[in-house]
Formats: sequence, structure tokens, C-alpha cells
Amino acid sequence: MKTKQEKTKTPSISPYRLALAQINPTVGDIRGNTDKIIASMRDAVKLGADMIAFPELAITGYPPEDLLLKPRFIKANEDALNSIIPHTKKIAAVVGFALRGDDGRLYNAAAVMAGGRLVDIYRKVHLPNYGVFDEIRYFTPGDQCPVYEHHGMKFGVTICEDIWFPEGPVRAEAEAGARLIVNINASPYHMGKISERRELVTGLARDCNVAIAYLNTVGGQDELVFDGGSMVADANGRIIMNAPQFDEGIYSVDLNLSAAENVVSDDDWTVPVALPQTPRSAKREIVKPPMAKAPSREAEVYEALVLGTRDYTRKNGFREVLVALSGGIDSSIVASVAVDALGAENVHGIFLPTGYTSDESRNDAFALAKNLGIAIDEISIEGLFRQYLETLAPLFHGRKPDITEENIQARIRGNIVMAMSNKFNRLVLTTGNKSEMSVGYATLYGDMAGGFAVIKDVPKTLVYDLCSWRNKKARKRWIPENVLVKPPTAELRPNQKDTDSLPPYDALDPVLKAYVEDDKSLDEIISEHCHPECASRVIRMIDLSEYKRRQAPPGVKITARAFGRDRRYPITNRYRDEG
Amino acid sequence: MKTKQEKTKTPSISPYRLALAQINPTVGDIRGNTDKIIASMRDAVKLGADMIAFPELAITGYPPEDLLLKPRFIKANEDALNSIIPHTKKIAAVVGFALRGDDGRLYNAAAVMAGGRLVDIYRKVHLPNYGVFDEIRYFTPGDQCPVYEHHGMKFGVTICEDIWFPEGPVRAEAEAGARLIVNINASPYHMGKISERRELVTGLARDCNVAIAYLNTVGGQDELVFDGGSMVADANGRIIMNAPQFDEGIYSVDLNLSAAENVVSDDDWTVPVALPQTPRSAKREIVKPPMAKAPSREAEVYEALVLGTRDYTRKNGFREVLVALSGGIDSSIVASVAVDALGAENVHGIFLPTGYTSDESRNDAFALAKNLGIAIDEISIEGLFRQYLETLAPLFHGRKPDITEENIQARIRGNIVMAMSNKFNRLVLTTGNKSEMSVGYATLYGDMAGGFAVIKDVPKTLVYDLCSWRNKKARKRWIPENVLVKPPTAELRPNQKDTDSLPPYDALDPVLKAYVEDDKSLDEIISEHCHPECASRVIRMIDLSEYKRRQAPPGVKITARAFGRDRRYPITNRYRDEG
Repeated sequence: MKTKQEKTKTPSISPYRLALAQINPTVGDIRGNTDKIIASMRDAVKLGADMIAFPELAITGYPPEDLLLKPRFIKANEDALNSIIPHTKKIAAVVGFALRGDDGRLYNAAAVMAGGRLVDIYRKVHLPNYGVFDEIRYFTPGDQCPVYEHHGMKFGVTICEDIWFPEGPVRAEAEAGARLIVNINASPYHMGKISERRELVTGLARDCNVAIAYLNTVGGQDELVFDGGSMVADANGRIIMNAPQFDEGIYSVDLNLSAAENVVSDDDWTVPVALPQTPRSAKREIVKPPMAKAPSREAEVYEALVLGTRDYTRKNGFREVLVALSGGIDSSIVASVAVDALGAENVHGIFLPTGYTSDESRNDAFALAKNLGIAIDEISIEGLFRQYLETLAPLFHGRKPDITEENIQARIRGNIVMAMSNKFNRLVLTTGNKSEMSVGYATLYGDMAGGFAVIKDVPKTLVYDLCSWRNKKARKRWIPENVLVKPPTAELRPNQKDTDSLPPYDALDPVLKAYVEDDKSLDEIISEHCHPECASRVIRMIDLSEYKRRQAPPGVKITARAFGRDRRYPITNRYRDEG
Repeated sequence: MKTKQEKTKTPSISPYRLALAQINPTVGDIRGNTDKIIASMRDAVKLGADMIAFPELAITGYPPEDLLLKPRFIKANEDALNSIIPHTKKIAAVVGFALRGDDGRLYNAAAVMAGGRLVDIYRKVHLPNYGVFDEIRYFTPGDQCPVYEHHGMKFGVTICEDIWFPEGPVRAEAEAGARLIVNINASPYHMGKISERRELVTGLARDCNVAIAYLNTVGGQDELVFDGGSMVADANGRIIMNAPQFDEGIYSVDLNLSAAENVVSDDDWTVPVALPQTPRSAKREIVKPPMAKAPSREAEVYEALVLGTRDYTRKNGFREVLVALSGGIDSSIVASVAVDALGAENVHGIFLPTGYTSDESRNDAFALAKNLGIAIDEISIEGLFRQYLETLAPLFHGRKPDITEENIQARIRGNIVMAMSNKFNRLVLTTGNKSEMSVGYATLYGDMAGGFAVIKDVPKTLVYDLCSWRNKKARKRWIPENVLVKPPTAELRPNQKDTDSLPPYDALDPVLKAYVEDDKSLDEIISEHCHPECASRVIRMIDLSEYKRRQAPPGVKITARAFGRDRRYPITNRYRDEG
């Protein structure tokens, strides 16, 4: 008993201490990202780490898109790497960057450094080119899987997609003697993806009998949120470290790989590349690796929205945001996310009633602002609406009111929020949800006008769940209960309800998922979900709304397939799934 | 002499008659495209053709984008191919379609048919994945280059990108005995691209000693225009057929390949795949292959804009369009293109003056409408502008007028044109040029509001050239001369000129091209073009306007790199080329 305790208190030097830098780089901010990398290295040295790993393309941020086509940009990122090398005197480091090879081609690469030297460069073998990924547009695949050795610990490096191939670089490196695979990622969030990753990492570790350190970047970049959630599995597939999602931090774990090392046969054909020795302190503080618990689905999505909104706002140089509050559930959840992302003092509400706006809506909008502690202004747009009708009367003579008049109201609001944005330099957050964006139940240049569409990938039914979850968490009045129970309405004509134009959301959302995310055909959707006429009508609405979505602001991807770069549809498209 | 004449008058049956179907398919319109293919086959049989070729992905239209991920869509396109096969009883045919291979993968393919049978399927070897192309997102590359034989004529098939590799499928097929390469394309237009293609086709034909029939699709698809311009080069690299650009048609040429055939050695290792015989008529009308002349740069660009505008409008189900006429050069050229694309009776102008609008602008707008023969309405937005100022006064208290008030006017116009669009079902054509879109000299939801941005890829200096060219061609009053000589102004504040905010366009446009199209660095641009401060300022404006461009409507790509899918930039981007 005593011996064991002693061991815990004064650990031997042998465990290899690995630090995972789950950092939040900004795309294009090469200097800022480099400073962050160097500062993290210093922290890791203080932690007594033997190695620190940084995410995929940590120097450039991910994804840099067509910046990668600029020779000057690549040069700047390589210069940045060179400035990092001298900081590896006391620690080994793996850093993602973009490499211009001697062949003139570009590689998604990881620099392996130690002792103030660049020892080797690993080149990503498997380049994803689906979903939101376009890596073959830029990069050439690598074809080498070397093994490295540091303080007697043999390890391999892989980048993101590389670990999704059971017969890929992980197995090659493990078979060549690696006891640890350092896998650096920029893996975007979607609901439940972290379980897929965990299953993959633990299964592959077990299959290949190798420890896997999965490091993910964190932060928002336009439509993507990288959720961190870095983890380490030992060679038995047990999770021995689980970093939190959505938070920046340096997370360390001690790896005792000696036992496993013995199983490697002597006839390893690969001679590992030796890294220079780095100093090891005999006395190190014990570190307890984080073991974050899995959040609920609602908590996870909500945190993704908060991080995405915060980073889009801040990284684009805005301090304050503006939300048009209607008293409805969509603008309520957007305001709530904004407050959690930026602080109540930086969130401004504006209430823009017409003659069709009910007292109930006003009460709910003002109650929300009060609960959230945000400022709210009110401007009636009724006068402007009447003046538009008057101005257009000579041209509209003899025509009946139709959707035109509804859109005019929405576009007056668009003009007002943009004027407020221009005058006070506040980013406008739009409030449309995925259900509306799917079927085109939104006004282009009206309620769609703004810089960031917080919930554009959140189906309406999930918006309700998020509100309920956030209210429970608040332990005080937050989103007024009435907002959750009253029927949704756009209030653009007398007694309007969403259900005048759309099926109820609990019937609509499953059709949307089946068609948009799962590429199901009309026949399949009917057999699984829905009344034939309803499914057929919904699908047609989705097909015909592509032109609107093309002009929508970006927003956080939270589903397996978001609109935008994730789902690339032609506007001009006569294909109709007729079943 | 007599003998020769005789020969010309009663040709022997031996020349192989090839018909190139330069058709205009619509993306997703599988039934419509199939009907067009079958009808073209009938026409080609009447022409006495031995073979007819159709463009790349002729059945689906190009590019079908993520429609290709729908299993039902692939099935429908394969069913369509099956319905085409029986129509090849009297003619050989090569038809582009999307193939689901036995391995479950998708191929960009060409069906080779004759005698009512599907003989073979060629699979595209080289998949473009740069610029506007994303083919690796969808397709697996083929690796077979078979040779076919029909009426004793040995030929190979290739698809688009395949011929851009000097050591690629063309050489492989020529070396295996092919005397003709049928190359089917969906190659998007940009200025001067046709000369690149001609150089490639003639050079490769000469190098590989093989005739090449280059067939291109024609038509507009969202941001792309396919310009046709199909051509045939003989084995000496001489152009023996040159189809017009931008026009649909079936173009035939007689190939006398017997002489060349003799040079093929007997020890060809490849046994050609024999196509079933098809009937040949002993007496055929002589066909004179088209030899279209190269249009001027201005004519070519203008025709591309006309075709792109016509197809976007018609293929999306609109008959009429609406253009806000300001009396300036941009709206003038857009109206002119619209009239040439759709007919004057389908083009509606609207003049939307404020207090800042000059009589000169009104006169020019109305003169233009008169010259073009289009309707024009006038609505003053001054009253609405005053009411916005009044409505916003309580919130803007103590703030000086700035760009906010300019944008309000532009957005009132945006609301009015969209209201007219909604009420009368007219597609709004926006009028911003590439110079403005580059530096963000445009109002989001204001002058940028609309369905199609006709000249969004045309630099301002080229807009002037197009106007001059079109005026010369008109041989009557067309765009008023005053529009071409007065200094450009947005008229959103008193005495405003574009040069208040921007360098002169003849200084601006070269910087834009160097930075946007050629990825030049600031240093390079300064050394080649520009005053350092000017270049630095312009580049910064381009970088900071990405968020606006992301919400712009689609428009015709006419340069080597357009904004949109051709140039994919992050909005959140801190990279600044500081020189």
C-alpha cells in the first residue's frame, strides 16, 4: 500500500508527458496564430511536457480556402514555421502548416520538431473532398508514414482524415513500431459527431494496438464550428483523457508506454527517426488529465451556436450585435445565444411593429429583453409601410394584395436594421431557422438581411428544445414561457399563422432531414414519414428556394448536412423527384 | 479536272460523316435533355451521319452538383440512357451521362452505342477539381482507354479534361490505333479561352497524329456559360470544322481517314471494340462544315452575357425582367443585354430618383428606354427617404449623416424593385460591375438586390468597351452617347462621383486583375502597376468586401477567375498582404 502511494506522489520520470494544445486560431492571422503557438509551447514546458501537439493547419487557421492559392500566403506560413522552430529547444512539437514541397506542390503537413530543430515533415495522406471539404483543390496527398523516437518513445503522426481509414497510416505506423499516434485535426462540429470520433479512435487504437492522441482545433470559422473535444485512447481502446468541447486549453496526459513497447518485435523493418533529446525535469507536478462528461444534445448544440456567434462577431472585428425581436421563439433563442456569446451589454434588441403586430408579441419581446438584460428600441414601421403602398399604388393599380405586401414589411425591417448596423457598427444577427430556410419561408433582403444567421441550420423543433433547455439552465426567468407555447406567426397579415403556409413543424422537420441530409427519394420519404401530398409539396418548396439560400448570410453548421458549402445545389435545376 | 469535279459532286461512300450535337441541355431536366438527344439523332440520320456525339453529361446537364449525390437522380439518368439506346439503330452515338459502376462508385461517363446496342462505356480519366470544378467530389477516375471501330474507322473517346494531358488518353488511344478522338466537353467560357482550346486541340492532333473532334455544350447554367465553339482538327493539326460560339446546332464534317489509317502498323496490340454496322446511304448530300470566324473580344463577351442572361431567365421560368435604370452606364449595358437576350417587350425599366438625381440622369435613362424600345416607369423615392430619416431620427439623434443615409436610399430602391418583381413575376437584373463588386462599392440589399447580376464579372473599363461596340453594331441610336462620356456617379449625396471613393477605373481595373485573377502579391502589383498607397488601399477593400459578395446574386463568369465558386475566400480572414 505504502509503495503504491509513494509511486503516485513521486512519479518516476519514465511516463511520457504529452500536451495537446486545443487552441483557437483565426484563419489568415498567421502572426497571431504563431504567437499563440509559441506561448502554448512555453506553458507546456512549464507543465513538464515532453511533447506538445497543435491542430491541423494551426499556423494558417482552417480552412484557409483559396488563400492557399496565393504564393505569398504560403511563404508567410512557412516563415512563421521557421520562427517557431527555435522555441522547441526544451520540448518536442508537432505543428500543422501548409508545405510547398520541392516538387512545387502543396501539402497539408505537420512539422515534427525538437531540440530547436525541424526534424521531419509529415504529409497528410488522405485528403477529404466531400461535404464541406475541398482539400484536393489545394493539396497533393503524401505517401510516407515514418516513425519517430523521442526519449525512447516511438510515435507516428497523422492528420485528420488519415485515421478514418482502417488500413491507412495509423496501421502502417503501428506496424512499423509506433506506440503512439499523434493525430492532429480540424474537424468541424455536427450533432453527435463526437461519439463517431470516440468510436473510431477507441476501435482503431484497439485494432492496431497503439495509443492514439486525437487533437482537435476549437473555434468558429464562418459556417463551421470546430468543437475541440480532444481525446486520448490507450492501446486497449480505453479513453484516458477527454478534453472539453468548445473550450480552448492545453490538456496533458502521462503515457506509460513501456509495457506496450515490449510487444514490438525486434525485427521492425523501420528505423525510427530520432528526435534530439530535450531536457526532462526529475520532479514534475502530477497532472490529472481532464475527463469531460458528454453534454446533452441541447447543451452541445447551444454551445456550438454560442462559440460560432462569438467567433464570427469578434474575429470580424465587431463588438456589438443587433437582433430584431419579434416576440417569437426564433429571435428569442438568437438573442439568448448572443447574450451568452458576447454579454448582455453588447446585444441590442429592436422591436419593429406594424398594424398586424399583437400586444402579445410586444409583451413577449420586452419581457425577453428585460429577462436577458439587453437594451431594446421600438420603431413602428406602419408609417413607412403605408407610404410604400401609396408610392406603389399607381403601378399596382387593380392588383390585389398578395405576398408582395408581406415582403415589403419584412424589407422595411431589413432596411432599418441595416441602417442601425451602419450607423452604430453593430453586426445584425438574423433569426431564420433551418425549417424556414429549407422551404423558403423567409423574405430575401427582409428578415434574411444581416451578417450572421445564428440558427440557420437548426430545425424549428430543435429551436423549441434549445429554449426549454436554456430556460431550465437559467434558474430564473429567461425566455418567456408564452413564447414557447403560442403558435408561430410571421404577423405580416391579419391572423396569419405559419401553419397557413406550412405543415406543422413536427411533420415538416422529419421530411427536411430525410430529403436534405439523407438524400432520400420521395418514395422513401412517403413510406417512412409522411402523407404523399405533404412530402411532395415540401420537397418542391425546398427545390424552388435554392435562389434564396444562395443569398443568405452564413450561419453555424450543426447538422450532418447544412445548406451552403456543405450542400451544393444548382439554382437552375429542373430535376423533380416525382416518386 | 473533270474527274476531281465528279468526285466532289458524287462523293464515294467512304468518308466517315461525324455529326457534333452542340446542344443546350438544362441541369436536372433529364426528360427534356433526353428528348433533345433523341431528336438530334433523328436529324443526324437525315444528314447521313455515321456517328453523332453529345456533350459531357448531356443527359443530366452540367454541372449537376450535389444532385449527383441523390441515388434517385442517378437512376433516372441511367433510365434515360436506356431509353436512348434503341434510337441508335441507324447511327453510332456517343452520349455523356453519369454512371453508377458495379463497384458502387460514380463515373463521369460516355456511352458508346450503335445498331440499337450499348457497346461500351468510357469513363473520364482526368477529373478537374480546381476553379469552378469539383469533380473529385463526385466521381472516381476511369483507367481504360479502349479503341472502337465503326465502318472500318478506328476511334477513341475522351471527356473534357482528358485532352489537357499530353501523355494522357488521347495519346494512348492514338497509339492503340485510333484515327479519330471524339472529345466531349462541358467547358465553361471565359475571355479568350477558345484560342487556348484551339491551340491545344491542333497541337495535340499533330503531336499524336490523330484527328480530334472537340465537342462543347452550349448554354447558361447559373454563373457559367458554355460557349460551344466545337471544332475538328485533322491529324496534321489543321482545323477542318469550326462551329459558332453561343449557338445551338448539329454540325457535320466528312472525315477521310483512309490514308492515315494505312500508317497504323499491323502490330497494334489493341483489338478495337467493333460497333455493330449501321446502314449507310449510297447518296448523301454534301455537307459543308461550318468555319465560323473568331468574334472580337467585345462581341464574344457580349454574346456570353446575352446567352447567360437568357438561359438563367428562361430556365428558371421567367418571361420578363426588370432593370432599375439610373441613366448610368452599368444599367444601360444590362438593359441592352436584356433586350438582346429576351426581346424589348420582355424588359421593363424603372427609374427611381431622389432629390440628388440630376436631370441629366433622367434624360439619359428615358433616352435609353426609348432607343431600346422598352417600357419605363418612374417612382420618386424621395418621400420614402424622408420618412425613413424621420422614423430613425429618435435613434440617430446627434449623429451626423454618413454612408448609412446613402445605403437607405439604395435599399428603398431594392425594396421597390423586389415589390415589382413579386407583384408582376419579373426577374430583377442587378447592375453592379466587377470593379464595384471587388471593392464593395455597392449596397447589400440595395443595388445588389435581385435575381441575376448580369455584369458582375465585367470590369468597368470593359463595360465601356462593350457599350461602344454595341453602339457601333446598332447602326442607330442605342446607348445614349452622353452615358459613355459623363463621369460615373451613384448620386446618393450631393455632387457625388465614384472617384470620391475609388481610384479612376483605368487605374483600379489592372490592380483588380493582378490581385483577384493572378494572385499577385502587393509587391508585385506595385512594381507592375500602381502607386503603393493606391494598391494597398484597393487590396484592403477587396479583402474586406467578401461578406458582401457572399450574398450577391449569381452572374455570368467571363474572366479567368470570377467571384463565387471560382474564387473561394473565407469571410473571416485576417490575412493582409503587407508587402
